[in-house]
Amino acid sequence: MSRFPLRAALAALSLLACPALADEGMWTFDNPPAAQLRERYGFAVTPQWLEHLQRSCVRIGGGSGSFVSPDGLVLTNAHVAQGQQQKLSTPERDYVEDGFVARTRAQELKCPDLEVVILQSYEDVTAQVLAALPADATGAAAVAAREAACAEIARASQEATGLQSDIVKLYGGGEYWLYRYRSFTDVRLVFAPEAQAAYFGGDDDNFTFPRHDLDLALFRVYEDGRPLSSPAWLPLHVEGAREGDLVFVPGHPGSTERLLTLAQLQVRRDHTFPRSEKFLDEAIDALQAYAARGPEQARQAGGLLMGLSNGRKSRQGEYRGLLDPAIWARKEAEEADFRARLAAEPRLQERFGRAWSLIEQAEQARLSRLREVEGRTMPRFGLARTAQALVRYVAEVQKPDGERLEGYHEAQLRRQRFRLLSPAPVFPELEQYLLERSLRRLATDLEPGDPFREAALAGMVPAERAAALVAGTGLADPAARQALIDGGPDAVAASTDPLVVMARDLDPLLREQEAWLRENVEGPARAGGELLGAARFAIFGRKAAPDATFTLRLSYGRVLGYPSGGTRVPAFTTFHGLVDRAESFGSQPPYELPRRFRDRLDGLDLSTPLNFVSTCDITGGNSGSPVVDREGRLVGLVFDGNLESLAGNFVYDETTNRAVSVHAAAIALALRDLYEAGHLLREMQGR
Amino acid sequence: MSRFPLRAALAALSLLACPALADEGMWTFDNPPAAQLRERYGFAVTPQWLEHLQRSCVRIGGGSGSFVSPDGLVLTNAHVAQGQQQKLSTPERDYVEDGFVARTRAQELKCPDLEVVILQSYEDVTAQVLAALPADATGAAAVAAREAACAEIARASQEATGLQSDIVKLYGGGEYWLYRYRSFTDVRLVFAPEAQAAYFGGDDDNFTFPRHDLDLALFRVYEDGRPLSSPAWLPLHVEGAREGDLVFVPGHPGSTERLLTLAQLQVRRDHTFPRSEKFLDEAIDALQAYAARGPEQARQAGGLLMGLSNGRKSRQGEYRGLLDPAIWARKEAEEADFRARLAAEPRLQERFGRAWSLIEQAEQARLSRLREVEGRTMPRFGLARTAQALVRYVAEVQKPDGERLEGYHEAQLRRQRFRLLSPAPVFPELEQYLLERSLRRLATDLEPGDPFREAALAGMVPAERAAALVAGTGLADPAARQALIDGGPDAVAASTDPLVVMARDLDPLLREQEAWLRENVEGPARAGGELLGAARFAIFGRKAAPDATFTLRLSYGRVLGYPSGGTRVPAFTTFHGLVDRAESFGSQPPYELPRRFRDRLDGLDLSTPLNFVSTCDITGGNSGSPVVDREGRLVGLVFDGNLESLAGNFVYDETTNRAVSVHAAAIALALRDLYEAGHLLREMQGR
Repeated sequence: MSRFPLRAALAALSLLACPALADEGMWTFDNPPAAQLRERYGFAVTPQWLEHLQRSCVRIGGGSGSFVSPDGLVLTNAHVAQGQQQKLSTPERDYVEDGFVARTRAQELKCPDLEVVILQSYEDVTAQVLAALPADATGAAAVAAREAACAEIARASQEATGLQSDIVKLYGGGEYWLYRYRSFTDVRLVFAPEAQAAYFGGDDDNFTFPRHDLDLALFRVYEDGRPLSSPAWLPLHVEGAREGDLVFVPGHPGSTERLLTLAQLQVRRDHTFPRSEKFLDEAIDALQAYAARGPEQARQAGGLLMGLSNGRKSRQGEYRGLLDPAIWARKEAEEADFRARLAAEPRLQERFGRAWSLIEQAEQARLSRLREVEGRTMPRFGLARTAQALVRYVAEVQKPDGERLEGYHEAQLRRQRFRLLSPAPVFPELEQYLLERSLRRLATDLEPGDPFREAALAGMVPAERAAALVAGTGLADPAARQALIDGGPDAVAASTDPLVVMARDLDPLLREQEAWLRENVEGPARAGGELLGAARFAIFGRKAAPDATFTLRLSYGRVLGYPSGGTRVPAFTTFHGLVDRAESFGSQPPYELPRRFRDRLDGLDLSTPLNFVSTCDITGGNSGSPVVDREGRLVGLVFDGNLESLAGNFVYDETTNRAVSVHAAAIALALRDLYEAGHLLREMQGR
Repeated sequence: MSRFPLRAALAALSLLACPALADEGMWTFDNPPAAQLRERYGFAVTPQWLEHLQRSCVRIGGGSGSFVSPDGLVLTNAHVAQGQQQKLSTPERDYVEDGFVARTRAQELKCPDLEVVILQSYEDVTAQVLAALPADATGAAAVAAREAACAEIARASQEATGLQSDIVKLYGGGEYWLYRYRSFTDVRLVFAPEAQAAYFGGDDDNFTFPRHDLDLALFRVYEDGRPLSSPAWLPLHVEGAREGDLVFVPGHPGSTERLLTLAQLQVRRDHTFPRSEKFLDEAIDALQAYAARGPEQARQAGGLLMGLSNGRKSRQGEYRGLLDPAIWARKEAEEADFRARLAAEPRLQERFGRAWSLIEQAEQARLSRLREVEGRTMPRFGLARTAQALVRYVAEVQKPDGERLEGYHEAQLRRQRFRLLSPAPVFPELEQYLLERSLRRLATDLEPGDPFREAALAGMVPAERAAALVAGTGLADPAARQALIDGGPDAVAASTDPLVVMARDLDPLLREQEAWLRENVEGPARAGGELLGAARFAIFGRKAAPDATFTLRLSYGRVLGYPSGGTRVPAFTTFHGLVDRAESFGSQPPYELPRRFRDRLDGLDLSTPLNFVSTCDITGGNSGSPVVDREGRLVGLVFDGNLESLAGNFVYDETTNRAVSVHAAAIALALRDLYEAGHLLREMQGR
C-alpha cells in the first residue's frame, strides 16, 4: 500500500528528459553506461574490465551463466538446469527431486540437448545492411531486402569464421550488429540441489522477495572430450555483496518492450493478457491433473508445469503493472513527452510522425482476427510441435537463403537441427494427454467446417485422434527425425507417420495465417516500431539503452532494499529467514525445510546471507547471470526479479524494481556445509 | 498485487444479504454470534463461558487487558503501558528505553494516572430512554431530551450502586444499554520489556505482518493497598494458538464507522484524510526535530511521537482503503443493496428514506467551514489543553446535569477529574515548543483580526507568547488545578494564570463554533446516521453486530495466513524471523536485535512462535486484548492489525483483514529465558 504515493510521485517527476538517470538499462558492451557509472558511482569502466566480463559470460539454454573456474565450470540457475536434470532422470533416479553432485569429473553427466555459446566478437554492420536496400524500396519490399541482407551477412560470416553468426537489430533498427559466438554442445551436469532447496516456496514465492532459494547449478563445458580451458572466469568472492555496493549483472536479457505505444499497451491490457491468463490457467490445471495420476507422471510433467507456472506469474505481474494507474500515468506522460519532442522538430515529425497511426492500424487488424488466430494453434510442446518444425525445416531449406522464413536462414540451421534431433526422452502418455486437450480445445473454439479443425481432427473425436497420433508416430526416435531431414521434401511427402501427415496438412493453413499476420499486423507494427525506434535514436542516440534482444548486456545498480506492504523490505535474507518461513508454515509444501538442511541445521551458521536484491535492470533470460563487483569478482547469482520488476517489460522504476540473487556466501555454505562439494568450492576459489 | 483479483471477486459476491457470513463483527456480550460459531466452528457458547471472559477482561487506559492470575495481575500491551512507563521515568532512569521487571511485589511501581475498569453488569434501558422522549419531540429538542434522559439514568445508577455507569448507544440508536463498571486507580507496573523488544521494527513495521514484537506488559491492580483478588482470570496456555484454531478476542474496540454513507466516505477520502495526513506529518516532523535536541528531549517526546506516528500510519491505512477501487466498489454495492431493500418496503422507505439527504446536507455544511474550524484549534496535548478542559469543567458542572455538554454529565465527572489532576510530570521545554508551533500555525492559517487568532496571540509573536504562557503558568502543579476545580467559576474568573486567561478568552469562541457544528454538521449527520442505524436494525435486527463503542465486545476467528505481495503470508513468525530481519538490515535502527536477545541467543529456542495472525475483527482499543481458545485459556495477546485491517474501519474483508498478536509461547519464553521473570510466568500458570 505504501508504494502508491512513491509511484505516483515518480510518475509526476519528469524523468523523461534523460532516459538513463536511474539505474536503468541493459547496455550493450559496445556502449557501456560509462557516464552514469562515473557520475553516480565514481566507477571507471575500462575496456579490459569489460572484455574480461564478456569472455567470462555464456548463454546457456534459455538463460545466462558464467565461467567460475579455469576448467570450463559454468555457474547458472537450477531452473536453467532443470530441463536437463529431468531429461537425464529415469523413473528410478530423479535428479530434479533429489539433486545431483558429481564427486569426480568422471561422474559429470552429459546433457542431451544443452548448448552453451560464448560471444567472441561484435561488429557494427549498419552501413552494410542499409547499403543493401534498393534506394526506392518501401514497405514489404524493404523489409524483405533487409532481411535478405542480414541473412547474407550472417551466412558469409559463419562460412568465413566457422562461428555461429547472428544479426542483432538495436534501437528499433537504428543499428545492426553482427555477433559471433563459439558454440559448445558437450555440456555436463556437475551440481544441482534438490528441487525443494532450489525452489523453496515454489510458485507462491516465485517473483517475490524476501526469498530463500538456492537456485544454482553447475555445468562443465567440454571440448573434444576434455574440460574446456576457460582462462577468463569469475572467482567466487565468498563475502559477497554488501548493502549499498555497486554491482553489475552481465547476461542475456531476453526481450523488453519499453517502446510500446499506449495503443499497443491497451490491447495487451484489455485483450492479450486476460486471454493468455485464461490459456495458462487451463494448461496448468490440465498438467496438474496429469501430475496427480502418480509420481512418475508428476516427474514427467514437472519441468513443463514449472515453466508454465513461472510464465503465468510473470505475465500476471506484467498485467498488474498495466492495471496500475501510476504506471499507466507514467507511460502516458512518456508518450506525450515523446510526441511533443517530435512535434518540436518538423524534420523529425515529417520522417517519424506517422508511426503511431501505423501501429494503431496494426492493433486494429490484430483484434479483427484475434479469436481465429488463437483457435488455430497446436500444442506448443511435444512431438506434434516437432513434426510441424520438421515439415517446415525441410521446405524452407529448399529456398534461397534470403527468401526463407526467419529462423531458417543458413546461419540459424545448426541450432534448429540441435533442437530437432534432441535425444531427450519422450513420454507417450503425456504426449497423448496434451494432444487430446489441444484437439478438444480446437474442436470447441473453431467452427465445424473450419479447414484447420478438420485437418487436425481428421474426422475423429479428440481422444481417439490423439491416441492414434501418438500410437502411430515414430518421431520419438531421433533417427526418424534425422531421416526426414536427410530425405528432404520427398521424404516428408512420402511419410505416412500420422504426426507428419497432420503437420503437412496444417502447414499451408498456418502459412496463410502467418502471411496475413505479417502483412496486416506484424508488418505495420514493425514499421511503426522501427520509426519510433529511429525517432528515439535520433533524439537520444546511444544515451538510452536499446530494448533487450537475448544478447550480451550489462546492467548495473546497488544492493538495496525497497518499500513494500507498508514497511521496508531488507536487501538481504539469511538462513534464519529460511528456517522461519519453513516453521511458520509448519514445514508444509511448498515450505518444507529440505531434509538435508534439517539434518545439518545445528552445524550451519544461520546468519549467513542467503538471497539479496539489487536495482539492476534485468528481465527473463538474465536467469543465471553472475552478479559481479567492481573488481570483477562473483558476489552473487541472479535468479529472479521481484513482482514489481515484472512491469519492467514496459517501464523501469528504480523505487521498487529489483533483481533477486543468490548470495555468494550462500553458494559457499551450500557447497561446503550442505552438499559435501568442497572440491567445487575450492575450484571456484581458484585453489 | 495478488490481492487485487481476490478483492475484486469479493466485491462482486453478494455477501450483503447476510452481513455476518464472514468472521466479522465485534459482538456485544448480550448477543454473542452463537449461530455463526455453531455453524462455522461447531462451538457452543455458554453463559458460563461468556461470564468468565467478561469477569476476566478489563479496560485499561485507552486499551484492553485481562486478568492473568488470581492476584490482580493484568496483561496488556507495552504500548498501552508506555505512557505510564514514561511518566514513571526520570532523566536518570528510563523505563521505556530499558524496560522494567519487579522482582518482588514491593518493587511494583504505582502509576500516576492509569485507570482499570471491569464491566460488572449490562442492562437494556432502551424502553426507559425512549419513554423519556416527549411524543412530539423532533430534531434538536429530541436529541437534548434523550441526552438528558441518558445522563439521568447513568447518574441514578451511579448513585444507587456506586459503580461507574455509562449509557451505550448501539445499532445507531436501535438500543440503549446501561453498563456498570468497577474502577481501580491504584495500578502498578510489574513488567515491561525494553522498547526495542516491544516495538522491533518501529514505525516501519507498525501495522504490518510478518511481525516480531514482544508488545506486552504486566500491571497489578491494587485495592486498599493490597493486590486485588481476581478469581476470574485466564491461565496462560504456553503451547498457544495453532494454525486453523478457532480463537476469540474479548476486548474494548474503540470505534468503527461501517455504516457511513458514500457521501461521508467521499468527504473523508477527498478532504479529511489528505488534511489530517498533512497535519500529522507536520506534528511528527516538529516532534522529531525536538527529539533531535538531545536524549532527554527524545525521552520526553517519545510517547507522543510514537502515538502520533501510530495514528498517522493507521489513518494512512484507512485512506488507502478508501482509495482502493475494490473497496469502493464494495461500499457502493452495499449502499445500493441497502437502498434497494428500503425501497422495497414503503413503510421503511417512508420512515428512513430521508437519511441520505440529511447526511449529504451535513457534509456540505462541514465543507463550508472546514478551513476555519481547522484553523481554530489549540494543541491537542499539554497544559494548554488542560487549561481549556479546566475552564470548561468548572462552567459545565454549574448546570443541571441534563443540560451539560457530553463528557461533563454527573456520571462522567470522576473520570474527568482523574485526568485533570494527574500528577504525571510536565516538561516545560516541550510544552513551550509545542505551544509555539501551534500559535505559529494559528498566526498563518487565520486572518489577522480573527478573534480566535487575536485571543491566542494576545499581540505577541508566537515564540514570545509561548514563552510567556509556559513561564507564567502554575498548572504544572496538580494542586493548582485542584484549587481551580474547588474554587469553581469565581476562581477561574479571578485567575491570572496566563494559560487560564487564554482558555477563558478562547472558550466562548470555541463554544460558538461547536454549537454551529452541532447544529449544522453533527446534528443532521447524527440524525441521518441514527435513521440508517434504525433502518438497518429494522432489516437485520441483532444479526449484524453494532459498530464499536469502546465497550466490551467479543470477536472470533481462525488463526490463518493470507495472500499478500504475490505470495502467502504465514499465520506465524518465529524468533528465527526476528533474527533474520535484524541481520538482514545489518541490525540498524529500528531493526537492532535488543542486546538482551543477542547475549542470550544461544540459549533460546529460536523456533518458538513469536507473533501470529487471526481473522478476528478488531480495531483500535482492542490493543492488549487476550486471545482465548475454546477452553478459555490465554493463547495470545492482540497488539495490532495488519495494514489491510485498517480499512476495517469501513469494511471487514476476511480475505486479508488480520489481527496481529503475541504468541503465548513467546510470552513464556520472554519471561523465562529473557527477563528472569519466571516468578511471573509461574503466577500466570497458576503455580
